[in-house]
Amino acid sequence: MTVIYQRVALIGLGLIASSMAHAMRENGLAGEIVGHAKSPETRATALEIGLCDRVFDTAAAAVQGADLVVLAVPVGAMDAIAAEIGPHLAAGCTVTDVGSVKQAVIEAVAPHLPEGVAFVPGHPLAGTEHSGPRSGFASLFVNRWCLLTPIEQSSPEATAHLRALWEGMGAKVDEMDPAHHDLVLAVVSHTPHLIAYTMVGVADHLRRVSNSEVIQYSASGFRDFTRIAASDPTMWRDVFLTNKDAVLDILGRFTEELFVLQRAIRMGDGQQLFDYFTRTRAIRRGIIEAGQDTAAPDFGRVAPPAKPGE
Amino acid sequence: MTVIYQRVALIGLGLIASSMAHAMRENGLAGEIVGHAKSPETRATALEIGLCDRVFDTAAAAVQGADLVVLAVPVGAMDAIAAEIGPHLAAGCTVTDVGSVKQAVIEAVAPHLPEGVAFVPGHPLAGTEHSGPRSGFASLFVNRWCLLTPIEQSSPEATAHLRALWEGMGAKVDEMDPAHHDLVLAVVSHTPHLIAYTMVGVADHLRRVSNSEVIQYSASGFRDFTRIAASDPTMWRDVFLTNKDAVLDILGRFTEELFVLQRAIRMGDGQQLFDYFTRTRAIRRGIIEAGQDTAAPDFGRVAPPAKPGE
Ligand SMILES: NC(=O)c1ccc[n+]([C@@H]2O[C@H](COP(=O)([O-])OP(=O)(O)OC[C@H]3O[C@@H](n4cnc5c(N)ncnc54)[C@H](OP(=O)(O)O)[C@@H]3O)[C@@H](O)[C@H]2O)c1
Ligand SMILES: NC(=O)c1ccc[n+]([C@@H]2O[C@H](COP(=O)([O-])OP(=O)(O)OC[C@H]3O[C@@H](n4cnc5c(N)ncnc54)[C@H](OP(=O)(O)O)[C@@H]3O)[C@@H](O)[C@H]2O)c1
Repeated sequence: MTVIYQRVALIGLGLIASSMAHAMRENGLAGEIVGHAKSPETRATALEIGLCDRVFDTAAAAVQGADLVVLAVPVGAMDAIAAEIGPHLAAGCTVTDVGSVKQAVIEAVAPHLPEGVAFVPGHPLAGTEHSGPRSGFASLFVNRWCLLTPIEQSSPEATAHLRALWEGMGAKVDEMDPAHHDLVLAVVSHTPHLIAYTMVGVADHLRRVSNSEVIQYSASGFRDFTRIAASDPTMWRDVFLTNKDAVLDILGRFTEELFVLQRAIRMGDGQQLFDYFTRTRAIRRGIIEAGQDTAAPDFGRVAPPAKPGE
Repeated sequence: MTVIYQRVALIGLGLIASSMAHAMRENGLAGEIVGHAKSPETRATALEIGLCDRVFDTAAAAVQGADLVVLAVPVGAMDAIAAEIGPHLAAGCTVTDVGSVKQAVIEAVAPHLPEGVAFVPGHPLAGTEHSGPRSGFASLFVNRWCLLTPIEQSSPEATAHLRALWEGMGAKVDEMDPAHHDLVLAVVSHTPHLIAYTMVGVADHLRRVSNSEVIQYSASGFRDFTRIAASDPTMWRDVFLTNKDAVLDILGRFTEELFVLQRAIRMGDGQQLFDYFTRTRAIRRGIIEAGQDTAAPDFGRVAPPAKPGE
């Protein structure tokens, strides 16, 4: 229970920011938590459920006097927010973000920040398909990775301080080059999401199979896709627009390999299919051994706790 | 606790058959359970853990005197098994199968069965990525669908009887035309599996991203894919070889739509991406409303019970 920042300003009060608020409170990491979100409704909710001690009508007002500012808005909104808050940041404060893409966020945010302000870009690898201020929970980051991608504007002290905050919320922290981050995430998250969206879209368009059949019989395989494809459209639009090069690179490889398997199916080449499917099993074993999931079919995702009063 | 069949012969003693054995015992549905699997190891295990009252070295011996024979082997093995057991089936008995593809199984099995034997093809929509005689558990089918695809050789009485067995094991039963079954499954299960296998394969082949990075950071999206792609290679090879037409049809539509989204990314068409992602959310809501999953990020899959002695 060590206070790491005296005043944390959360800009954006959705899934990630509200989970941070719960986690910081539970672990006594912040002296005060203030915030701003675009809509009056979200700001009212944040006060009502105690996410923030104070909310402000503008981001510029929210960041004043804060020693940590967390940009937790969709990636496409970072540029305007950074331009707005730049002149109002306290000397010596740290700005971080939680965006799912790093190079584009750095390009959008860094130019707006004055000297004497550290910028330490970050990305917690944790989420659910829910969004908004009521969707957060304190344990979202427990045992999950948070990747920091320090740049020139990140002082080693500011990076170490931010690392302590994430560790205090239960996360494991790693540092990585921003471009490498964007490639890794294109592989493990962005492209799989696009594929899941596409497959769910195909099912939706098929005339001969009704939506109710798709829904009823989606016990295997497809259900995971629908969960992935239920994620917030704004967030994912921004991810694909801003991590375009890496996603297009991985997508190209994906269709190439898919065509190889498609051809094996058409040709009836069972050996090739068998060999391919055998190799992919090993990756799964690695994930279980790395503790990211369990062998049991039902574990592996963070369950939100019962809501207070439920 | 009504005995529905006096003697059930399970041919193949893997995930599905062993789950049926546990479920039939727990619910008192079978007078006696006998079985056969290819390897002596599996047969020994089945006796040791009490899956079967008796095991036989051949399928032909196992089916003698049984009033229900369940073919629970990979789809590609059905033909040879049916040819072997055909002459040994008791008059009036029912043969069913649990194969993931229906038209190909019907073509492989039906010609080998003598008159006076009913053949009621079936497919429980339940599974995990595990296989073998130790992977089964009694609750696998609870609240899951089992699709029966009756044909000319299925008498209404035999179909009704088999339906009672599945309902006794906790499943919901529906009837469907075999060709329609294969198309629906190509959409909700087979094509998603192929896509997951492919994406995991792409990750494995990427030089610039190490496997350990893929494994460590697979918290979102990709982890579901690895789980799907860890399924049994033999079973899935057979599925793709035998449900070829429907899978190729759906794959063609999938790549078509994927190219549309890929182009939108390349062109920076955020509106098109946003609209697409918004539409796919609705399907997810439908699944939650249909009770196939819950809104909580952690529910929805059947958890195996603690193993006896654990
Ligand atoms: N969800 C995940 O799985 C996940 C995981 C890791 C990282 N991330 C990243 O975290 C960030 C936030 O995602 P989230 O899931 O927390 O989103 P979310 O639940 O949809 O919340 C977004 C928040 O940003 C606010 N906002 C949007 N535009 C704004 C603007 N122009 N000015 C001020 N506030 C604005 C919204 O305000 P209103 O409520 O008033 O609209 C809302 O409070 C994104 O960059 C995303 O890439 C998400
Ligand atoms: N797994 C799923 O998610 C799922 C869901 C629904 C339907 N199905 C269908 O259910 C069937 C069985 O799948 P499963 O998951 O239970 O597979 P599994 O766990 O791999 O077990 C397959 C069983 O079949 C036996 N076998 C294989 N070839 C044989 C042969 N020629 N003669 C006798 N026994 C043979 C194996 O014996 P050994 O152990 O001796 O090798 C093993 O006991 C497949 O048709 C599959 O399509 C599977």
